[in-house]
Amino acid sequence: MIIMKAEATEKEIANVVKEIKKYGLRADVSRGEFRTVIGLVGDERKIPFSHFAVLPGVKEAMMVETPYKLISKEYSKLFDEESEYRTIKVGNISIGGDEPIFIAGPCAVENRRQLFKIAEGIKKAGAHILRGGIFKPRSSVHSFQGLGANGREEAEEALSWLREAGKKLEMPVITEIRGETQVDLVAEYVDILQIGARNMYDQDLLTKAARKNKPVLLKRHFGAGIEEFLSFAEYIAAEGNKDIILCERGILPIGKGRNYTRYTLDLAAIPAIQKETYLPILADPSHATGRRDLIFNMSCAAIAAGAGGLMIETHYDPAEALVDGQQMITPDELKDVIDACQRIRRLVVSNKET
Amino acid sequence: MIIMKAEATEKEIANVVKEIKKYGLRADVSRGEFRTVIGLVGDERKIPFSHFAVLPGVKEAMMVETPYKLISKEYSKLFDEESEYRTIKVGNISIGGDEPIFIAGPCAVENRRQLFKIAEGIKKAGAHILRGGIFKPRSSVHSFQGLGANGREEAEEALSWLREAGKKLEMPVITEIRGETQVDLVAEYVDILQIGARNMYDQDLLTKAARKNKPVLLKRHFGAGIEEFLSFAEYIAAEGNKDIILCERGILPIGKGRNYTRYTLDLAAIPAIQKETYLPILADPSHATGRRDLIFNMSCAAIAAGAGGLMIETHYDPAEALVDGQQMITPDELKDVIDACQRIRRLVVSNKET
Amino acid sequence: MIIMKAEATEKEIANVVKEIKKYGLRADVSRGEFRTVIGLVGDERKIPFSHFAVLPGVKEAMMVETPYKLISKEYSKLFDEESEYRTIKVGNISIGGDEPIFIAGPCAVENRRQLFKIAEGIKKAGAHILRGGIFKPRSSVHSFQGLGANGREEAEEALSWLREAGKKLEMPVITEIRGETQVDLVAEYVDILQIGARNMYDQDLLTKAARKNKPVLLKRHFGAGIEEFLSFAEYIAAEGNKDIILCERGILPIGKGRNYTRYTLDLAAIPAIQKETYLPILADPSHATGRRDLIFNMSCAAIAAGAGGLMIETHYDPAEALVDGQQMITPDELKDVIDACQRIRRLVVSNKET
Amino acid sequence: MIIMKAEATEKEIANVVKEIKKYGLRADVSRGEFRTVIGLVGDERKIPFSHFAVLPGVKEAMMVETPYKLISKEYSKLFDEESEYRTIKVGNISIGGDEPIFIAGPCAVENRRQLFKIAEGIKKAGAHILRGGIFKPRSSVHSFQGLGANGREEAEEALSWLREAGKKLEMPVITEIRGETQVDLVAEYVDILQIGARNMYDQDLLTKAARKNKPVLLKRHFGAGIEEFLSFAEYIAAEGNKDIILCERGILPIGKGRNYTRYTLDLAAIPAIQKETYLPILADPSHATGRRDLIFNMSCAAIAAGAGGLMIETHYDPAEALVDGQQMITPDELKDVIDACQRIRRLVVSNKET
Repeated sequence: MIIMKAEATEKEIANVVKEIKKYGLRADVSRGEFRTVIGLVGDERKIPFSHFAVLPGVKEAMMVETPYKLISKEYSKLFDEESEYRTIKVGNISIGGDEPIFIAGPCAVENRRQLFKIAEGIKKAGAHILRGGIFKPRSSVHSFQGLGANGREEAEEALSWLREAGKKLEMPVITEIRGETQVDLVAEYVDILQIGARNMYDQDLLTKAARKNKPVLLKRHFGAGIEEFLSFAEYIAAEGNKDIILCERGILPIGKGRNYTRYTLDLAAIPAIQKETYLPILADPSHATGRRDLIFNMSCAAIAAGAGGLMIETHYDPAEALVDGQQMITPDELKDVIDACQRIRRLVVSNKET
Repeated sequence: MIIMKAEATEKEIANVVKEIKKYGLRADVSRGEFRTVIGLVGDERKIPFSHFAVLPGVKEAMMVETPYKLISKEYSKLFDEESEYRTIKVGNISIGGDEPIFIAGPCAVENRRQLFKIAEGIKKAGAHILRGGIFKPRSSVHSFQGLGANGREEAEEALSWLREAGKKLEMPVITEIRGETQVDLVAEYVDILQIGARNMYDQDLLTKAARKNKPVLLKRHFGAGIEEFLSFAEYIAAEGNKDIILCERGILPIGKGRNYTRYTLDLAAIPAIQKETYLPILADPSHATGRRDLIFNMSCAAIAAGAGGLMIETHYDPAEALVDGQQMITPDELKDVIDACQRIRRLVVSNKET
Repeated sequence: MIIMKAEATEKEIANVVKEIKKYGLRADVSRGEFRTVIGLVGDERKIPFSHFAVLPGVKEAMMVETPYKLISKEYSKLFDEESEYRTIKVGNISIGGDEPIFIAGPCAVENRRQLFKIAEGIKKAGAHILRGGIFKPRSSVHSFQGLGANGREEAEEALSWLREAGKKLEMPVITEIRGETQVDLVAEYVDILQIGARNMYDQDLLTKAARKNKPVLLKRHFGAGIEEFLSFAEYIAAEGNKDIILCERGILPIGKGRNYTRYTLDLAAIPAIQKETYLPILADPSHATGRRDLIFNMSCAAIAAGAGGLMIETHYDPAEALVDGQQMITPDELKDVIDACQRIRRLVVSNKET
Repeated sequence: MIIMKAEATEKEIANVVKEIKKYGLRADVSRGEFRTVIGLVGDERKIPFSHFAVLPGVKEAMMVETPYKLISKEYSKLFDEESEYRTIKVGNISIGGDEPIFIAGPCAVENRRQLFKIAEGIKKAGAHILRGGIFKPRSSVHSFQGLGANGREEAEEALSWLREAGKKLEMPVITEIRGETQVDLVAEYVDILQIGARNMYDQDLLTKAARKNKPVLLKRHFGAGIEEFLSFAEYIAAEGNKDIILCERGILPIGKGRNYTRYTLDLAAIPAIQKETYLPILADPSHATGRRDLIFNMSCAAIAAGAGGLMIETHYDPAEALVDGQQMITPDELKDVIDACQRIRRLVVSNKET
């Protein structure tokens, strides 16, 4: 990490960047109100810090040995002493601010009518962002893989419905990318690129998605510790894209005997992550519990734990859904969730301020 | 399970109980407003249900094959059609009602002065029940094991401080029993017997504690699924003691890389357990997270998830504590927690009613 | 699953395949000595089995609802009543036969000299297949990612060393593909495509790799149960490629307190998997334990458990390796491992025959 | 830890012990061929080591801060430079030597005839020690809890059968103690006291069992890391009883999808534990897998991993067993296991020596 002097010139900054590249690393230049900080992407042990410390314009040069540094609070504090958290703007929605953000919609887009009907329902319920799966990651090759599996034409059609529904209802839209070949296509149609839990470790996909310069929502893998979750978010930041929205969606259940939930929603990860990084973090109670009857309680709990918002699967008739019906709630139930969560959020935020 | 007719006489009930014993099982007689239900303790496959079905006064006789039936909602609904949950009264405190209950105090009782000072602090902060460890379960034989390890005399002295503090401040008191030989002694001094996570599987201890006819607080083992947790609570109910307070305190963390919390607080277990049993369930954010700076958020989250109360380690000077200082909060911090939790509880409960 | 009559004609088979496609599924045609069986790829609930049962040449048509059916023993037994296991031939090596197969080599290819020196060492030690990582999956974007990270030219150079070393020493070669864009390139140079544990869930990568019609070695994800591991292997089989080599490499460690191994090598998964599928399964004690001093014992144990071979990281000077030095053994140590394992294998196999 | 001079007198040793007690700790005096070492039981931070270093006869006084020190190799090497492992003698059987030891018998003792018939079968098969459960730990209070649950008289009768069978067939016998009140009784009848996985954390039970001065077989809890397993074995050693036999019996399974084994047999724990302690370690493939058809492979694997023996549930007619029939093998199958394991053991041990 290279901290530049307040009075460092652009030329001096460019020179440091050039020097960094000589050693086979990349530079992450962050310009704050008071100073510029240059993060190093790559193996810092190759860098002769004493040499960098005396380059023109450099105030300090030091090694940072954590696997996530570009997304750490320590890093952002160096150039932005004011705000502790990053706010990510998508359309007229701010993720990471005081208001909790609700992403809702069907697990899988099935047809135009289904998507629009649900989109209208969640809009009325107070949701902010529309989700809908087109490329579905599935445990079995023999299960429905989403409309995206039926070839590029059908994939584009489904993506265009999503974009259209978002425009009509003035909601940004998000969908999951599961493989590298889907990134370019999907990025044309949606506002936020989602990388699912199962793909969290897919560093080539993360890198490719990051380069689209759109916000990326990254879900924690169900086998990843917090450190590893953040280390993979760092792959996105390393491409210069800091618009990363983290999402806790449950880790592997353990324990003798049945557990009654599909995964274990690790809510303590939420405040723990907020001590480490400036990035916003949401929770997904739908996939975590796999149970419609636990969504209300776990939504309230996630917001109380400090989540900046929720992703909730919604369907006007869950029993009819092709995928994951047992965990979806209706738009009416969503409204109750949003109302309660907003009141809890105000309570938790106001308490923090006093 | 034997459901008696509404008009069944005491003699008929006694006769059924006698018949059950003949087959080597025990009877759990539950008298409700409308009818009496007799649960069977033991292997129901030995029972000839067709024979029981025609005994005088019997309405229905049927096999129930779950490992927890005496504590299940199905069982209680048979004789009590009104209330879904059991309220456990200790002194003037009701556990399992609308008001969340806060159990606070030091991890370990160290001396009289320390205990009284903390007790006064938590009383002022609004806590309802005083806790203090005297027999401490520890991973290392070389660590401080609590004053109870210094022989019966010191154990009794510490227990008497606890009782005295409780009386003075009008708070019921609770402490942990770790081994069978401690049960009789501890039961003389405290209002609630606590069985810690590590002893959850100790069925002989559970049985012995149950027989004291005092409320038993049972913590979930960090390796136990919900089904197994409830199956061991059933050991207490099988002794005729249904005053069981469950407590979620975190399960084993998993995941590659560091996790930043000591255990994983499984908050979804709380509403999931409330679907299964009429027993109240609390949460212990102190042991679950092992981090003082996460207590506020995780307390709020536990209450939002539906917990009937919290157990929180408290110390006027956490840095000075002999055990677990890094996870204790001060009485002032406890007050903030209680205030926020009470407001969240009202919000969650009122929402349920509408 | 459609079982054809022994006397079914090619035309009848083609007709069934055509019919299957009409319903949006794909057909996996397996021709055995006695009969032909047609597996269905996709959602079998869409198929009217009664209609298929009466098509010309069809003996039986039935639904199979497991997530892995094309790789199941049940399926292969229908058309091949003789052999229980599939033998995969690569060059003059047979994987899945009586002889245990040893894949060895460096964690990462660092330069030509290093690769050749190690390759010669392992050849002399008795290894059969040469491994060497070029695209390395890493937890930290700041760590060495393999020579493949330095652009296509360096990647090809490293791949050509691998191919050259293999030719010179008459050993098939294997390397890992981490992202879809690497598949075409890597398939030009190596004999076996490896998909690492972290990419096990990457169904697009699996599909793309399967289509190269080369054997694919698939490692179990550290968070995957056996059922899920096999379900993802099925993604490869669904492309018509049954040359799949499974590899157990350790699952997430759990437990309070330190565990002293990096992962938990799940050796019981090996015989358990052999009851389910005809595919060969190997073990990787290097990544599983992360400890050089446990490799000998755990190699012997894996072979005793029934593994068809091992993948072991080897380096002439582990201390000098850029990646994972602490878990590599020398060629001399490898020789001891191979000798002991071959003797154990003979013992275990001979016992099975009696 | 206090290392005495070679020429230290008994009086000097006694004086050091007396001094230790003054500080509230206990002394573990180990006399080796060359010198005496005094381990400290309790919190060593209370000890002024500089004061002890100058006491008469003391060579060195130093703090050791691991949770298991009395059972560590470092400790034993100080006074016994010769042998790396402890051999525990029970009757004419040596546990911890070159020969693998086989403990076999029924899960639960059901009646005299069943026990004797099985005992004869396992003796003929080559087993060394007879096991049989009388106090059974069970997940459900409604399941068969062993004959010990029927009162003291039946418990004693079952114990006397065990003793009688052992005498008749010249095999030491072992049974499980589940609660403190069973220790005195059971110790009268058996040669080895077993503490099951579920009771591993029950420090009061461990302490009480240790004091009977009989070998104690301690099973690893399914949620315990290796460090914690050894830390609880230390509770036994702290009572002066070093005749501790460790036993790995599987840890909690994890992973999405079904796992096909009841627990995960952590075989790498075996060599890892042998690097830490001089105590012998066995494996129990019956409870670990819960599957009869995996016993042969996993037994061979455990011995290959370095286990000093196995505990295997055996029944002449598994289908007839009241408990755990699906995981028991017959005496004939046991013979095959023992034969194969003995050959593997010779192979592994001879390899170590060269």
